[in-house]
Amino acid sequence: MSGLQSAVAGATTVTGKRRLEERSAFDKRLRFSVRQTESAYRYRDIVVKKQDGFTHILLSTKSSDNNTLNPEVMKEIQSAMATAASDDSKLVLLGAVGSVFCCGLDFLYFIRRLTDDRKKESIKMAETIRTFINTFIQFRKPIVAAVNGPAVGLGAAILPLCDVVWANEKAWFQTPYTAYGQTPDACSSFSFPRIMGLAAANELLLSGRKLTAQEACLKGLVSQVLWPGTFTQEVMLRIKELVAVDSLVLRESKALMRNTSRSALEQANERECEALKRVWGSSQGTDAILQYLQRRTELC
Amino acid sequence: MSGLQSAVAGATTVTGKRRLEERSAFDKRLRFSVRQTESAYRYRDIVVKKQDGFTHILLSTKSSDNNTLNPEVMKEIQSAMATAASDDSKLVLLGAVGSVFCCGLDFLYFIRRLTDDRKKESIKMAETIRTFINTFIQFRKPIVAAVNGPAVGLGAAILPLCDVVWANEKAWFQTPYTAYGQTPDACSSFSFPRIMGLAAANELLLSGRKLTAQEACLKGLVSQVLWPGTFTQEVMLRIKELVAVDSLVLRESKALMRNTSRSALEQANERECEALKRVWGSSQGTDAILQYLQRRTELC
Amino acid sequence: MSGLQSAVAGATTVTGKRRLEERSAFDKRLRFSVRQTESAYRYRDIVVKKQDGFTHILLSTKSSDNNTLNPEVMKEIQSAMATAASDDSKLVLLGAVGSVFCCGLDFLYFIRRLTDDRKKESIKMAETIRTFINTFIQFRKPIVAAVNGPAVGLGAAILPLCDVVWANEKAWFQTPYTAYGQTPDACSSFSFPRIMGLAAANELLLSGRKLTAQEACLKGLVSQVLWPGTFTQEVMLRIKELVAVDSLVLRESKALMRNTSRSALEQANERECEALKRVWGSSQGTDAILQYLQRRTELC
Repeated sequence: MSGLQSAVAGATTVTGKRRLEERSAFDKRLRFSVRQTESAYRYRDIVVKKQDGFTHILLSTKSSDNNTLNPEVMKEIQSAMATAASDDSKLVLLGAVGSVFCCGLDFLYFIRRLTDDRKKESIKMAETIRTFINTFIQFRKPIVAAVNGPAVGLGAAILPLCDVVWANEKAWFQTPYTAYGQTPDACSSFSFPRIMGLAAANELLLSGRKLTAQEACLKGLVSQVLWPGTFTQEVMLRIKELVAVDSLVLRESKALMRNTSRSALEQANERECEALKRVWGSSQGTDAILQYLQRRTELC
Repeated sequence: MSGLQSAVAGATTVTGKRRLEERSAFDKRLRFSVRQTESAYRYRDIVVKKQDGFTHILLSTKSSDNNTLNPEVMKEIQSAMATAASDDSKLVLLGAVGSVFCCGLDFLYFIRRLTDDRKKESIKMAETIRTFINTFIQFRKPIVAAVNGPAVGLGAAILPLCDVVWANEKAWFQTPYTAYGQTPDACSSFSFPRIMGLAAANELLLSGRKLTAQEACLKGLVSQVLWPGTFTQEVMLRIKELVAVDSLVLRESKALMRNTSRSALEQANERECEALKRVWGSSQGTDAILQYLQRRTELC
Repeated sequence: MSGLQSAVAGATTVTGKRRLEERSAFDKRLRFSVRQTESAYRYRDIVVKKQDGFTHILLSTKSSDNNTLNPEVMKEIQSAMATAASDDSKLVLLGAVGSVFCCGLDFLYFIRRLTDDRKKESIKMAETIRTFINTFIQFRKPIVAAVNGPAVGLGAAILPLCDVVWANEKAWFQTPYTAYGQTPDACSSFSFPRIMGLAAANELLLSGRKLTAQEACLKGLVSQVLWPGTFTQEVMLRIKELVAVDSLVLRESKALMRNTSRSALEQANERECEALKRVWGSSQGTDAILQYLQRRTELC
């Protein structure tokens, strides 16, 4: 357990600590002002705003740092999406409060469980991810992602399961799976090669190359890059246009674009989660996460 | 019917009217000079020139504005392609006379019929489109598109069914389907995501983003952008090179590139046309076209 | 046979002859210094270095010019890959000694056989290629290509069968199949359209457009372009990072990325080789190669 303890300790002695704290304080003020305007306080880790014609889901995690995903966060997102699927929302807008979009899996959460019972917990983790990803694959209304800041690991890999992706020019994208000894997730082993070819996909998935928003747009991960100063306004303008579209047209269009690849995505998700069980179920897999947590000096 | 009348009236009171008329007069002179050199006057809406080794089909519609497609225009293209399929042409070069490539469907034609008998005419329209698109999907010789100007709606969506696409730098590309309350056609719901990924495809198909020729080239819709001043000459130079290739090699190459996706394209075409029947068969679908015709102020 | 003789003669009277000789002399010195450091002298046309965690295979052909591929060269590569598949290598790094990566098939070798017995030799050639390409399709460990210079024909077409492709900024890429009257090989009729769309793929495969390294990267054929001055060092740095990844993770990742397309690639390879038999088995096919050899004035 000393490895785990030092990993957790390490996470609080990072070099850029002061900057992180400042940013975090600013994020908290932002979160507070967002929550103040909320009608419902049903969620802890996300903010859900039912707007005219769409549902706005914003990551704003309290149970994890930097909008990382643990089972609780994932369950809240799934619940909000289930509501949006059945109400009169024409689409879901997925964003985040603060300066980070989503830094992937909450490894601090997972490593605690993995070090307890590796075999059992690796299966549980993989199943949690499988269900979460299937929620995106099976969603019938358009999902629009507004990527305000860093999108890392599963936080980047999930973007091809969204239908439109607008990115703040400050956002960046990275899937450094091999850095934490992991195989690809969120169907990225299937979707990334389809979007950009294997040569580019492998550089992201195996070599963990970091992409700027502009590069991610050139590679096809992002629909359009928007100016930081007016990011939210620009997103809202475009959402208004989309929400003005007849719901039959939106539903039929999404069905035409997605139905033929849905089962292939479900199978890719299945295969990836089976591989994750094998990797996380091995001692090397758990060690790799521990080593990653100990050496990481960055926000994400 | 007043909606229809004002729509038709609206189309003649557009802001850029004078520029349109000047362009139109110039286009007519061009058409005349092209037709003068023609041996056969079999077609009304297209000009077909059997050249050494290839068939040149040029849109130059009289029964519609801006090379938009109605059943008559489509039938002429199908007929010219059937001839090219069975004669000694090695390939078909598809272009247009004047400054516009193809502004998609002839909504002025269709709206007249839809307002008469929505159920019956929406089926008829969709079937006409299905047959037209299948002509492209099933064509065994290379189809080269020379995009001289705006390619809009079906006029842009059909490009991935061509094998090589050269664009004038002045050309632009747009599929503003949601602007006229329509779902994607010409297999674009299948081909666009394959070429550029869903994030980019949805921005074109759902948000109707307009692309310059250079952007369309970056996204993979266009093979190469050519300089306006020498567009026709550059196209002809490249066509000569292609026509010099042995016909067995051309036929086998096209078969290798296309045969595996032919049935998937036919199915996509089928699904899209079924969706169009549902959309155009609804009162919202017809209203959306009417509203589009009333508010449009642009050439295409 | 006079056509063949003049073709062979033509190959030695090219315009850039002096520059070629200088380059060749420099390449020979390089090859010598590389071979000096070798432990094993088992191969004639390639240099194989078993390094810490990976196998480095370098094209350095003696039985052909400009690293072109004839049955002997292909067999040596297959043999080296078979060894790398079963030893503790985590990946294969494929490169070349000198200033050329691979100029495709060794037509001087093939034309001698084709002019002897076209029917028999065209089948033999196609089968040799089929087996060679299947070696790449079926390889379970990551293949990284370090493209130091021109990659032409099969030498370019094979890149999508590699997992990561790093290119020297001086490298260029061309598949001028129609110039030698040939249909696509190495699954390029399948992989090129998937990576960049048919419009771009056909311009490479039918029109033989030459791409700079940067263009190839934009189109998705290349993962990243590296600076000529430090190319080898930059490649080695990245290889070290990849080799540090756990072998289970590398194996599972490659399986996730590749397993679903393996049989489609094998079928594409099969179809392409059947087409090559038909093309090379025809008198036009053999003539086209002869004419190509007679008129070519370039290195590749």
